Amino acid sequence: MKIAILLFDNYTALDVVGPYEVLSNIPNSKIYFTAEKPGLYKNNKGIQIFADCSLNDIEYPEIVVIPGGFGIDAILDNKEILKWVNAVHKKSQWTTSVCSGSLLLAAAGILNGRKVTTHWNRVEQLKKYPVEFVNERYVKDGKIITSAGVSAGIDMALYLVSLVVNENFAKAVQLAIEYDPKPPFDSGSPEKAHKEIVEMIKNAKSNKNK
Amino acid sequence: MKIAILLFDNYTALDVVGPYEVLSNIPNSKIYFTAEKPGLYKNNKGIQIFADCSLNDIEYPEIVVIPGGFGIDAILDNKEILKWVNAVHKKSQWTTSVCSGSLLLAAAGILNGRKVTTHWNRVEQLKKYPVEFVNERYVKDGKIITSAGVSAGIDMALYLVSLVVNENFAKAVQLAIEYDPKPPFDSGSPEKAHKEIVEMIKNAKSNKNK
Repeated sequence: MKIAILLFDNYTALDVVGPYEVLSNIPNSKIYFTAEKPGLYKNNKGIQIFADCSLNDIEYPEIVVIPGGFGIDAILDNKEILKWVNAVHKKSQWTTSVCSGSLLLAAAGILNGRKVTTHWNRVEQLKKYPVEFVNERYVKDGKIITSAGVSAGIDMALYLVSLVVNENFAKAVQLAIEYDPKPPFDSGSPEKAHKEIVEMIKNAKSNKNK
Repeated sequence: MKIAILLFDNYTALDVVGPYEVLSNIPNSKIYFTAEKPGLYKNNKGIQIFADCSLNDIEYPEIVVIPGGFGIDAILDNKEILKWVNAVHKKSQWTTSVCSGSLLLAAAGILNGRKVTTHWNRVEQLKKYPVEFVNERYVKDGKIITSAGVSAGIDMALYLVSLVVNENFAKAVQLAIEYDPKPPFDSGSPEKAHKEIVEMIKNAKSNKNK
């Protein structure tokens, strides 16, 4: 099973690696880090991940993962990438996004009329497309699964493994990555966080985490 | 604030990127991906992350993060790395590990007599060192913080941000990465998972997630 994870400059690293860590356990799978050109892709906080294949190198991945990040805005009108997204989506078994990666799927037109989600701070931007926003950790609509912000890609990927393999296998992956989360605080959603903290993130001139 | 994250072949990617995603929000911080030699470091599932500096390039990081992975065993007797771990630990403000990264700290001798934790499937191996194992998501003993398996690095890093900056800032980071986890299953620890699933992971010939 071929799994393509799109890379671009200024992706959010956990959007990429959360699903990677989970999906790479699927038996007989291979992950392809895919970008316009092979090479190192940076984000602004220092990490550099290597894209081992170009868009043309991988035409028919069974699973497509579009991560988000503040760099997503720069590729929403990138014709080559939009064309690739449409092409791979036509043949994919599953087309997925994490965080603001949903915006690229929306820009490609494939979320039209779909139930979708995204990072809480990108909801208004996503609603400009003809989609039905749902406030969930991840949302499946047909073969498309979109997830909420950053860390939600882990939850989405575990769910996807249960669909692609089976529930017991997904539970084994969860145990292998000891995903029994115990955040030290309860501030992970705008409903739970203090208002001032929500405003702090909303007003950050460059929120690097969406 | 200089933050060094050690890379080596066959690290677990989420051990690296969980703390990276969180700690890189610390104001005026810079992350250094540090390895024996600069270059690309692979894990067996395909991801390649670039190490931008060698052990000698970064002598006094304020925060040290040792990720785990099945490649950790191959460096437990690596004199250069052990020497570096001891050297940076002497001057660090915080020395941390994720998952089986604790074994490297133990091999370097700096966990002697300390309260520590690790991936659930590495506990027996860690107990061979003179440490006091504690079954928690992360454990602070002085300036050393060890975490449980893989995904626990996210929880540990949020806690560390609250110590380094303050609690409200840590909560803001949690909100930015929308860390409001909702795993689709409740199978993230050996206490919660079905016995057969625990045995499946224990008996896997090469468990790539520890």
